[in-house]
Amino acid sequence: MQAGIIGLGLIGGSLGLALRETKMFKRILGYDKAALHEQQALSLGLVDECASMEEISQCDVIFIAVPLDFVAPIVNAFSDLTPTQTIIDLGSTKHAIHELIESKMRKNYVGAHPMSGTEHSGPKAAQKDLFKNKILILTDIDKSGAFQIAFAKEIFVNLGMQIIKMDSASHDEHIAYISHLPHILSFALANTVLAQEKPENILALIGGGFRSMSRLANSSPITWKDIFKHNKAHLLHSLTDFEKHFTEAKEYVAKEEWDKLMAWMKKANELHNFL
Amino acid sequence: MQAGIIGLGLIGGSLGLALRETKMFKRILGYDKAALHEQQALSLGLVDECASMEEISQCDVIFIAVPLDFVAPIVNAFSDLTPTQTIIDLGSTKHAIHELIESKMRKNYVGAHPMSGTEHSGPKAAQKDLFKNKILILTDIDKSGAFQIAFAKEIFVNLGMQIIKMDSASHDEHIAYISHLPHILSFALANTVLAQEKPENILALIGGGFRSMSRLANSSPITWKDIFKHNKAHLLHSLTDFEKHFTEAKEYVAKEEWDKLMAWMKKANELHNFL
Repeated sequence: MQAGIIGLGLIGGSLGLALRETKMFKRILGYDKAALHEQQALSLGLVDECASMEEISQCDVIFIAVPLDFVAPIVNAFSDLTPTQTIIDLGSTKHAIHELIESKMRKNYVGAHPMSGTEHSGPKAAQKDLFKNKILILTDIDKSGAFQIAFAKEIFVNLGMQIIKMDSASHDEHIAYISHLPHILSFALANTVLAQEKPENILALIGGGFRSMSRLANSSPITWKDIFKHNKAHLLHSLTDFEKHFTEAKEYVAKEEWDKLMAWMKKANELHNFL
Repeated sequence: MQAGIIGLGLIGGSLGLALRETKMFKRILGYDKAALHEQQALSLGLVDECASMEEISQCDVIFIAVPLDFVAPIVNAFSDLTPTQTIIDLGSTKHAIHELIESKMRKNYVGAHPMSGTEHSGPKAAQKDLFKNKILILTDIDKSGAFQIAFAKEIFVNLGMQIIKMDSASHDEHIAYISHLPHILSFALANTVLAQEKPENILALIGGGFRSMSRLANSSPITWKDIFKHNKAHLLHSLTDFEKHFTEAKEYVAKEEWDKLMAWMKKANELHNFL
């Protein structure tokens, strides 16, 4: 069996490394529209070989790990897929893309979202254990072929992932709050502090708190522009909700309502009762 | 020489462990107004002995690691300090407290802020390496005695800390952006997500990003209420500035100005050029 990976950045590159370890595939082919990424992927051993889209389209399983705007056009461009070929989309939002997949390849297509990543991007950011012990969400599985879902599950289990299923609309709504909102906050914190503080003061005063909170601000603008765009409606809800809670605290501070502020913090502490 | 530590939580407890390792002091006494904390501190070996405030007041150096509202009253209650006794306040805001210290003990008193901590609190959260390789800010050192500053520096260097000096007003302004604002954001994120999502969905969808961004939301409301209160003016500035940057992004999303959103993220990326 052969696997093909389209997009050799953090996700695609890490997947190449992880798949090689499973020994499930005889060969792992890669493709990236950036020639530099292909060269890096080869020299880092992320894939066995870089190949044309034509060759990739013959693989038993084809993983799509590209910015979201490119997912549906790439999937829909495949022709003459066999009934057992499997295309796995690893993008971070699902509903809008699922809607764009043409019916002739809908059974071949599997929507998957690995809850793993780092703030780094590109082939050099690849890590072979990126997926191990992480959650993998399969979306709208009733619309994919039974063979494709079984095959996808087998692969992700072999990568050490825990699989959950969700409809794509719910996925996008939940993920807006749990992943996309935190990214906006980290970017906004970085911009706030950069506008106010000189680098030497940031370095002088940095503690673990700021490091945690600003880490995601190093994430790829190209990747995240597409994510925010594809999940616009849910993201805006999450931003509006956040504003409400943030403003509540700000008003407690402004009005010196310290007991209310303390109760607000105690409520937030509850998150860690189950986390 | 003897050291006394008032307040045996995360900071005071960690300090006890770290000081014991330096072997600078023959005995390390501790005091906490919570009897449970004193028992925990003893059983965890954070201090050699728990003692009365009267006994603590005889120590060569006395560290204050209590919520900010209690710092000045504790310091000002000492009587008959000798010219070489040193009181080191480890609180997270400095200017307002410095103003409250009475002139008769002002030379004995040293303002210090270790840029180290975790989201946990209480004696059980103590870690012997909490201060190692971290930054220690000494504030308004011209108002402390030369002996006291030299002694404080010697201690903190022995703990493996890097020392920087700053006036207390600047300290409080910078720290509002670099530490206090990130804490508010983490609490607000936790409250936003708790209000929207069931625990099972949070657990199902959690990735490294949300873990990083929600970690500080487990911080002690008692400690942080005082910090926010003591740094109210600077904190409000930082919150207002943050709102501006956050709203900028929200408007780009709402208006689908994706290129502007991407430029906004690229700007944020610059933080990691020097971090």
